Amino acid sequence: MKAEIISIGTELLLGEIADTNSAYLASQLPSLGIDLHFISTVGDNQQRLVGTLQQAWQRSDVIIATGGLGPTQDDITREAIAELFHEEITIDPDLVKKFEDLFKHYKIDMPRSNIKQAGVIPSAQIIPNPRGTAPGWWIERDNRILITMPGPPREMQLMWANELLPKLQQRMGGTVILSKTLKTFGLTEARVDESVSPFLSAANPTLATYAKVDGIHLRITSKAQTTKEAQRLIAQREVDIRAILDDHIWGADFDTLESIVGASLTAKGLTLASMESYTGGLLANIITNVAGSSSYFKGGLVAYSDETRAGFGLDAQLISRHGTISAEIAEAMATAAREKLGAAIGLGLTAATGPTEVEGKPIGTIFVGIDDGQRRQSFARNYPGNRLQVKQRAVTSALFELRRILL
Amino acid sequence: MKAEIISIGTELLLGEIADTNSAYLASQLPSLGIDLHFISTVGDNQQRLVGTLQQAWQRSDVIIATGGLGPTQDDITREAIAELFHEEITIDPDLVKKFEDLFKHYKIDMPRSNIKQAGVIPSAQIIPNPRGTAPGWWIERDNRILITMPGPPREMQLMWANELLPKLQQRMGGTVILSKTLKTFGLTEARVDESVSPFLSAANPTLATYAKVDGIHLRITSKAQTTKEAQRLIAQREVDIRAILDDHIWGADFDTLESIVGASLTAKGLTLASMESYTGGLLANIITNVAGSSSYFKGGLVAYSDETRAGFGLDAQLISRHGTISAEIAEAMATAAREKLGAAIGLGLTAATGPTEVEGKPIGTIFVGIDDGQRRQSFARNYPGNRLQVKQRAVTSALFELRRILL
Repeated sequence: MKAEIISIGTELLLGEIADTNSAYLASQLPSLGIDLHFISTVGDNQQRLVGTLQQAWQRSDVIIATGGLGPTQDDITREAIAELFHEEITIDPDLVKKFEDLFKHYKIDMPRSNIKQAGVIPSAQIIPNPRGTAPGWWIERDNRILITMPGPPREMQLMWANELLPKLQQRMGGTVILSKTLKTFGLTEARVDESVSPFLSAANPTLATYAKVDGIHLRITSKAQTTKEAQRLIAQREVDIRAILDDHIWGADFDTLESIVGASLTAKGLTLASMESYTGGLLANIITNVAGSSSYFKGGLVAYSDETRAGFGLDAQLISRHGTISAEIAEAMATAAREKLGAAIGLGLTAATGPTEVEGKPIGTIFVGIDDGQRRQSFARNYPGNRLQVKQRAVTSALFELRRILL
Repeated sequence: MKAEIISIGTELLLGEIADTNSAYLASQLPSLGIDLHFISTVGDNQQRLVGTLQQAWQRSDVIIATGGLGPTQDDITREAIAELFHEEITIDPDLVKKFEDLFKHYKIDMPRSNIKQAGVIPSAQIIPNPRGTAPGWWIERDNRILITMPGPPREMQLMWANELLPKLQQRMGGTVILSKTLKTFGLTEARVDESVSPFLSAANPTLATYAKVDGIHLRITSKAQTTKEAQRLIAQREVDIRAILDDHIWGADFDTLESIVGASLTAKGLTLASMESYTGGLLANIITNVAGSSSYFKGGLVAYSDETRAGFGLDAQLISRHGTISAEIAEAMATAAREKLGAAIGLGLTAATGPTEVEGKPIGTIFVGIDDGQRRQSFARNYPGNRLQVKQRAVTSALFELRRILL
């Protein structure tokens, strides 16, 4: 099946917002066995929109359009599709009723303009929108499928996951496509590619690598007649990859380093405290992005000046001997955080984030210190990048090393 | 002039990377007086790419293509354009020489595949690429312009700014287009739209509003025969808008709240320290995203548990009386940060970030406390949103209020 995505909205052509919907939908299609051939972006201009829809209807089997379903005058996707199929738009009374109830619920008078969103054509099946008033359309005719969804990502993604993805899976029939993502840290993408290269050229399961802020991700995608067989193919390939990348793999699919660290602290009934210097609070911030982190994270210290370092209990002589960016200080920070904040584990992080090198340490030099009460350890790392990238990589390194120790 | 952007690369159709180039280029065109009608994304398939180029060449005056200029087999943009114009690709010896010198400089043998990137057709003028080996092309014929640039954003954006933007400005001739962005905080987009509505419908200067994480931005764009006149139009409209939005406006163009706060702390020779609770370090992190912030930011305290709050000198009785999310505690946090970390100003921030309401305070309740040694003040705010949005809004509120006091 050849697919085409059409993104509708003048704001996209003005560069006022980036088109994240197309990337999201594009990433969903391979696992359906649908080949995406084009993404077309067009503004709120009926003539150009109809032209774009006509072209798509001629050259593609599945057309997925997002945007232009709002209540205002310049939302013309419904009108353009009606023109494409020479059909009449009529107002669906059930939808109008639904809108009225919704607005009643929020105790707001329904603007008359919303009635426009209850318009539908004979060919279109209405797709409910749990997060907004603009319903989607599913149109199936001449062995082609045309789908329309609202532009706001949170409305579009839920409608896609709940309604349209299952409908398309059913229409594609037969083959089951599954995928699993393995997440690594500490290796370059080139290095990962090299070590798994025999699998990169395999047809089933396929393997692809992606460079992300938290490391290199590997996506295994298998195709089979049954779920069981598709799962078997993935499991087998996962064993191959784990044998090669071993403890560089820290998680899978929806795992984040902070959620994994949080889960194992919770499982072990341990608490954590942090002291960081040049990362300026990013470490504590990412740890506390996890809902419920208050059950294991005691707090954090951000030492951004000599006085603060002294106030936080770091020995001035130790600093003058080794510099603030050193293994010794990273360990001292871990111990001070642990003791001052009364946690089971102290995590210390210091890094040269620029703009210039500090104490002769090049930008990107990172030291992680960990004190769990029994043992003090530190790890030295170095990553290229600008100020914000080094801050991010330093925090990822700290959480990665902490995870290793918690295992 | 009608323009069209063509993004080339199968990775875009697989959703492996989002197409940020198109949004960047789209945002550049309005100030040139060029109307963007379409953005087309196509994969590394010569037939479909040539078809897309043909269509663009028929319907648009300016075509800007990015991607597909790499050294590998699947980079086919040069070949597709040669096919479009029925021209022969020949290798440019000067470019080959340049490549060889470049690789020599990095002490790497030049892969033979790179020679492909020295290919050029008679119609094309070569555009240098200071950040890579793939040069761009400028093709001007039949009253149309076709531009190709490499896909990597850092290569594309520099080539655009240095070479292509000036060339296009010259070609457009005559009219000067300037724009200025004013940044506000504390008002909803609907509210801002309402209060400046007369100007939103004006033709010159135009006015547009955008909702961003740090508030609502207003972009004024003027068109005139001379720079002086264009500047006068913007200045005049800026006066109108400032008269209405007044001290909700905190900055312009490239200002960020953290850079403005940093600049005025530096100017006044003042230092800052922070204590935050449920924002978990995001406040300190954003303050320290500014290069040079170590000259005025002493450090930060992240109080994420009762023991930590006590350890940081917050009175347990005060907490039990008012709760951790209260004006009183925000002020106490400011004072404690100021005194413990020896700064001129202490900034305290506490907010209900979810997942559930805390102490009967609904998610989105924010208290900012400021103690400058003379006076303690606090501000209560409330913003909707999920955990991460509330964290972000709370930090923006804190920096916004601090800026007001520093003025």
